[in-house]
Amino acid sequence: MKPAKTRLALEIHEQPDVVARLVEREATRVFRLTHALADREFVLIVARGTSDNAARFAQYAFGIAAGLPVALAAPSITTLYGARLRLGRALVIGISQSGRSPDVVETLAAARRAGAATIAVVNDESSPLAAAASEVVPLGAGEEKSVAATKTYTAELAAVVLLAAGLARKRSLVRGLERIPEAMALALAVEPRVAKLAAGLAATEGAVVVARGVNFATAFELALKLKETALLLAEPYSAADFLHGPVALARKGLLGIVLSPPGARAAVELESLAVRLAAQGAGVLRIGPSGHDRIPVPEVPELLSPLVAILPGQLLALHLALARGLDPDAPPGLRKITETR
Amino acid sequence: MKPAKTRLALEIHEQPDVVARLVEREATRVFRLTHALADREFVLIVARGTSDNAARFAQYAFGIAAGLPVALAAPSITTLYGARLRLGRALVIGISQSGRSPDVVETLAAARRAGAATIAVVNDESSPLAAAASEVVPLGAGEEKSVAATKTYTAELAAVVLLAAGLARKRSLVRGLERIPEAMALALAVEPRVAKLAAGLAATEGAVVVARGVNFATAFELALKLKETALLLAEPYSAADFLHGPVALARKGLLGIVLSPPGARAAVELESLAVRLAAQGAGVLRIGPSGHDRIPVPEVPELLSPLVAILPGQLLALHLALARGLDPDAPPGLRKITETR
Repeated sequence: MKPAKTRLALEIHEQPDVVARLVEREATRVFRLTHALADREFVLIVARGTSDNAARFAQYAFGIAAGLPVALAAPSITTLYGARLRLGRALVIGISQSGRSPDVVETLAAARRAGAATIAVVNDESSPLAAAASEVVPLGAGEEKSVAATKTYTAELAAVVLLAAGLARKRSLVRGLERIPEAMALALAVEPRVAKLAAGLAATEGAVVVARGVNFATAFELALKLKETALLLAEPYSAADFLHGPVALARKGLLGIVLSPPGARAAVELESLAVRLAAQGAGVLRIGPSGHDRIPVPEVPELLSPLVAILPGQLLALHLALARGLDPDAPPGLRKITETR
Repeated sequence: MKPAKTRLALEIHEQPDVVARLVEREATRVFRLTHALADREFVLIVARGTSDNAARFAQYAFGIAAGLPVALAAPSITTLYGARLRLGRALVIGISQSGRSPDVVETLAAARRAGAATIAVVNDESSPLAAAASEVVPLGAGEEKSVAATKTYTAELAAVVLLAAGLARKRSLVRGLERIPEAMALALAVEPRVAKLAAGLAATEGAVVVARGVNFATAFELALKLKETALLLAEPYSAADFLHGPVALARKGLLGIVLSPPGARAAVELESLAVRLAAQGAGVLRIGPSGHDRIPVPEVPELLSPLVAILPGQLLALHLALARGLDPDAPPGLRKITETR
């Protein structure tokens, strides 16, 4: 395999360092700033695109670690309909690489006016989102030149873990996070195998990406990467919802990607779903287990596994784009910041 | 056109009556029962599949009408990880046709033990979900024999509007809802046109369904109907998120369905998205505007439009299934109740 010399490939491989730096720089400060938030009844997260998938992870991380219910904001409630949400007892977090999506900024600013505690998780500290929030967690991922977000996504996940650790007063979570960059580096070492598998998948017509629990966010993010980078119509599902209906879609020409990192609590359920997909004629790619036609990922505590499990997925999107003759750095029709209000 | 004599078709056409009966029977009682809920800080909704799309509508309806933030539950936080969410100031609503999905029942029961006010919105009053909640809003839609839910979906939307009206103390919303069955009957009269359009779309490879604001739920529900009934890989998007990335997917062979009922606040944005989809070579079907290759829907107040705008979508899924040689009453691999825990 010739290594792919794209900006996307370079940024994918920066991720272990980006997460290591973020944890080293921010862990103590974030743990301290969450101290004042113990009275918050729930969390509302405002985000779009890739950052919305980090928000989805936060729903699990805050719920499991701290017992905090999390709502993902529908910004148009504020920006299109002008509703004023009751947020006096909420923690509202805006997550954005650029910090410049107008509807995210406007929703966070409205929340602060409504009395919410506000935090911006952003890569650009000089952005309007950072200015609108009372606290900022900077990602420090360096400029992200690729249109498809990768290193800012895993940095956002790491920031979410730091916030969850603080909200739950669990320093053990921070210690677990400190060991993640090493696992990330191991996960990225599967690139040659992913490139080979991708070459055989170039003609795929459509995909579903299925997970359960904390890696539901990974399924969304992998599907988004496949769509925007490899132009593959891919849809994310929780295993539960998939069985509730769309399992009927599984047939020849469809690729079922099953995310089941080692130690996943729903591993048996996910494996039986993989078997069912194959029985209906769909192609099946497992991310997690090792073996032929499977992409292994190193075992880490399940709550932290989304930081590792997405990496082979990013590599798959990259190499599938190359196999389909696309330039992963220049997906047609895409811009880095969406100006939706 | 020969009218389709399927159970699905019969249930689709029952909807104006189902909603009229529900409003007549429950409006006063629901308005009264919400009186005790004025101290609730936020709402958590537990649902799966079609009912999860009714929950998505509730996020907009409760937010816009009552300023209440709404979180959609991730049941596995409770059922897979055993987390105990802080819900003492929450209103927790379980929405389910059958009332028998174990993870929905278990999550609602855990919420009640945690001190939440609980309501079950169910078609089957003798179900475990009804027993688990302190209040019940029965849909009274009659038995739903078709695997694809239609009349229970619009009944759930109507129940959500009644709850929103009560939580916001806005009787005007109830009066608006009383006029909806007439608009629903008008919307169903487009069936011959939909059948004709569906015949021309039989070879469609994949679809995206795009909406913005309150009809985001309609986009999800229409995509689900297309998947489970017509076996068409269809993905829902908010117009904002679609522009943020997956717009690159638009090309020949893809069908873009743009939901823009008359009076939609984002009508201009949605129309420019439709034009862009067409310019990239995708087929475009507009639900809302009138004109050639468009499916008109009657104008109603925007907040209530999801009750009307989904109807041509249900008809499209039905007739696309017929055009593709599928039996809409027997989608392969589907069961009415999912036993996921």
